[in-house]
Amino acid sequence: MSPSPRDASPTLNDALQDIAEAVNRTMDRLLTTTELPEAPLMEAMRHGTLAGGKRLRPFLAMQSAFLFNVDSSRARRVAAAVEFVHCYSLIHDDLPSMDDAALRRGHPTVHKKFGEATAILAGDALMTLAFQVLSEPETHQDPHVRCELVRALACASGAQGMVGGQMLDLIGEKEEFDLGTISRLQRMKTGMLMCFAAESGAILGKASEPQRRALRNYAFDLGLAFQVTDDILDVEADPQDTGKEQGKDLRAGKATFVSTLGKDQAKGRAQMIIEQAVAHLKIFEGRAFMFEELARYVMARRA
Amino acid sequence: MSPSPRDASPTLNDALQDIAEAVNRTMDRLLTTTELPEAPLMEAMRHGTLAGGKRLRPFLAMQSAFLFNVDSSRARRVAAAVEFVHCYSLIHDDLPSMDDAALRRGHPTVHKKFGEATAILAGDALMTLAFQVLSEPETHQDPHVRCELVRALACASGAQGMVGGQMLDLIGEKEEFDLGTISRLQRMKTGMLMCFAAESGAILGKASEPQRRALRNYAFDLGLAFQVTDDILDVEADPQDTGKEQGKDLRAGKATFVSTLGKDQAKGRAQMIIEQAVAHLKIFEGRAFMFEELARYVMARRA
Repeated sequence: MSPSPRDASPTLNDALQDIAEAVNRTMDRLLTTTELPEAPLMEAMRHGTLAGGKRLRPFLAMQSAFLFNVDSSRARRVAAAVEFVHCYSLIHDDLPSMDDAALRRGHPTVHKKFGEATAILAGDALMTLAFQVLSEPETHQDPHVRCELVRALACASGAQGMVGGQMLDLIGEKEEFDLGTISRLQRMKTGMLMCFAAESGAILGKASEPQRRALRNYAFDLGLAFQVTDDILDVEADPQDTGKEQGKDLRAGKATFVSTLGKDQAKGRAQMIIEQAVAHLKIFEGRAFMFEELARYVMARRA
Repeated sequence: MSPSPRDASPTLNDALQDIAEAVNRTMDRLLTTTELPEAPLMEAMRHGTLAGGKRLRPFLAMQSAFLFNVDSSRARRVAAAVEFVHCYSLIHDDLPSMDDAALRRGHPTVHKKFGEATAILAGDALMTLAFQVLSEPETHQDPHVRCELVRALACASGAQGMVGGQMLDLIGEKEEFDLGTISRLQRMKTGMLMCFAAESGAILGKASEPQRRALRNYAFDLGLAFQVTDDILDVEADPQDTGKEQGKDLRAGKATFVSTLGKDQAKGRAQMIIEQAVAHLKIFEGRAFMFEELARYVMARRA
């Protein structure tokens, strides 16, 4: 999907596009090219990160930072780090031994273009770069804040988070999961990293715990709703819009919200979760309106 | 190889074994098991880290910490983090699309035992865990020190370090490298992580820059000598001792020191590098004798 989705409001659209462009520039700068023999590695890293993507996690990180008046050059570094982790996970998830995907965002996947070994290494190097960026003084002058960012990103993306969720996802191809396990899977696989993104601006801004909790709760619900609507789109949408094959997850025998609840019930579930997500934002007394817009868009999106 | 190599002096032997046992306990504690459906992930992480290994990097980290009277419980956490990164790189390097190795340390490789997808995820989760461990207050009370550790580990293990070195190694299967490029490859692939390990105790102990530089230089040379002797062992040693097939790297068409220099010249080169490594330790006026012992062992080892 392009950074300006057709179902978003003009305000949200502009904000999404501005942030995507700004964070793309930061990512581009952090992924410096080289003339050295190992150059294909960096090319693969760039292909896996800079070839499109709606930059939802950077959007969450930047909007969170805006709420607490955080310097935007710092927020952009954190946003880039989150996106590096997200992109590394896509590169690895697309590999033949995992989801075996040929297309991503309408382009050939990294292993299709650069080979499997290079794709694995590009993912590894992107994750490493994410932690490097967070640890550097340019991200925040207070090393306590930087350590907290590193730790929170690691918790969200490791065995107890994103990677553990992907493991569950693979197991789900062979085992029948109940709705509780599917929800847990999605929380780990996508929710926790979204949650980190939404909280990261609050960490940079040394916000209060209730504010941080509100953002985490919002993002958990948003992530879940996003996944439910993704499952719906997997069976409904035009491959030209999603950039991937239709019904791919369903055919792979994956436990999804649609395969468990049916399409109509899944839609009702998504609506309920979105309302809950917006309710968490009350504490910000309307200042988090971009997050509210985003929640409404997730419900309305067609691709 | 077992943690008590037969060619090491009794003093070095005891120290290697003590440190291996202590760091194994720390790693074991950090890799907590779970009853959850995603349990195979943690089992794969444990198999890839706790099934043997000489713990050379933990040894460097712990000895470095001893030099500056660093609390050993902190040093053990850093040693475990370095070893997690080393082990993740072995798991990924062993994959079918990379070195395609069936055996490691005499055991089936992680992908042979748990499948390719789980092996990729186990490597990812181990790297993530390494950064998490370094970022936590238990590693050092001063967050400046923790950030410095995170950054130094990331630089040593990312695109400009270990991962870049593995990329070069793969390219070397198809291209003829000169001696300069082979040296650079080894410096990136193994030297920089060894260098981080040797410096990590000095970072924990807030040592002076000349002391840190001496340890880095020592470890760079040690790592290079280690690689040259590894290349020699690849063509000379009994698979029963190395735990891997004989002549594997040479047959794979990989550019090694032996394939470029010939066996005898490679031995002379290793000897020269080892002498240089020991010379860097002068600044410690004999207190770094374990590092000297280790250098002599690298030269003498047969497997």
